[in-house]
Amino acid sequence: MKDHQWTPKEARTKAEKLLASVKTTFMATNGSYGHPNVRAMRPIRIEGCERVWFTATLESSKIIELIKDSRATLYGSAANRSEFRLWGNVSVLDDPESRAFVWNDELKKFFEGGPEDPLLRVLRFDVVSGMYRGKEGKKGNFKI
Amino acid sequence: MKDHQWTPKEARTKAEKLLASVKTTFMATNGSYGHPNVRAMRPIRIEGCERVWFTATLESSKIIELIKDSRATLYGSAANRSEFRLWGNVSVLDDPESRAFVWNDELKKFFEGGPEDPLLRVLRFDVVSGMYRGKEGKKGNFKI
Repeated sequence: MKDHQWTPKEARTKAEKLLASVKTTFMATNGSYGHPNVRAMRPIRIEGCERVWFTATLESSKIIELIKDSRATLYGSAANRSEFRLWGNVSVLDDPESRAFVWNDELKKFFEGGPEDPLLRVLRFDVVSGMYRGKEGKKGNFKI
Repeated sequence: MKDHQWTPKEARTKAEKLLASVKTTFMATNGSYGHPNVRAMRPIRIEGCERVWFTATLESSKIIELIKDSRATLYGSAANRSEFRLWGNVSVLDDPESRAFVWNDELKKFFEGGPEDPLLRVLRFDVVSGMYRGKEGKKGNFKI
């Protein structure tokens, strides 16, 4: 039976690799009227499986959702059907240090005002636990 | 201002096209412990933007989530950043008609027993409303 599961350490290492290799992740939030919500989001900075940083515009509905309820799930999958899921909480940040930490010049097309753009918000996703499933279906869970 | 929004009819038509063209959609559900959940899912049959059919194995955790709370959101996006979102409810079905309706021989690798496989469940996603956003950011909502 044990061979059918990754150890927590294996699962975490594999989830980290997959997270680092996918361009797009999908963040689920508790949306309005009790409905779940989800959208594609591109990580800006990744700290292993512990923290993932994103940017969002203040006008985005996910800001309101995350301020109301910080619980979120980050999902990613590869063409070969391997997948990871990270459960955690998202903080919506507005301080100069966080803005500087995530800033890169590619963001200029979305935030013309640079790191001080009044519409820029930083989303810091702090992971609590995670799951990895390989293409063969072998699965493992881990805690951070 | 009106030029910045698709009409409901335009938004629905464009969402239908995008839904038909993406291979993978992402379904968000209300998961355990108040956390949202999300996973990649490949539509098996699509009826415009009104109904989308999937299969799932009885052992999947999403079956439990959907029986507890049928509210779900289906999301898809293209490489050019256009995206759709459909809000609705999922029924978990087990009757012979639904099984026959979704069955195709590609499913054999997941359900060896064919359409009568005891682990096969049919998920029927009935759409209530939707959103489409084009690559240029122009957005529109519609009701079914």
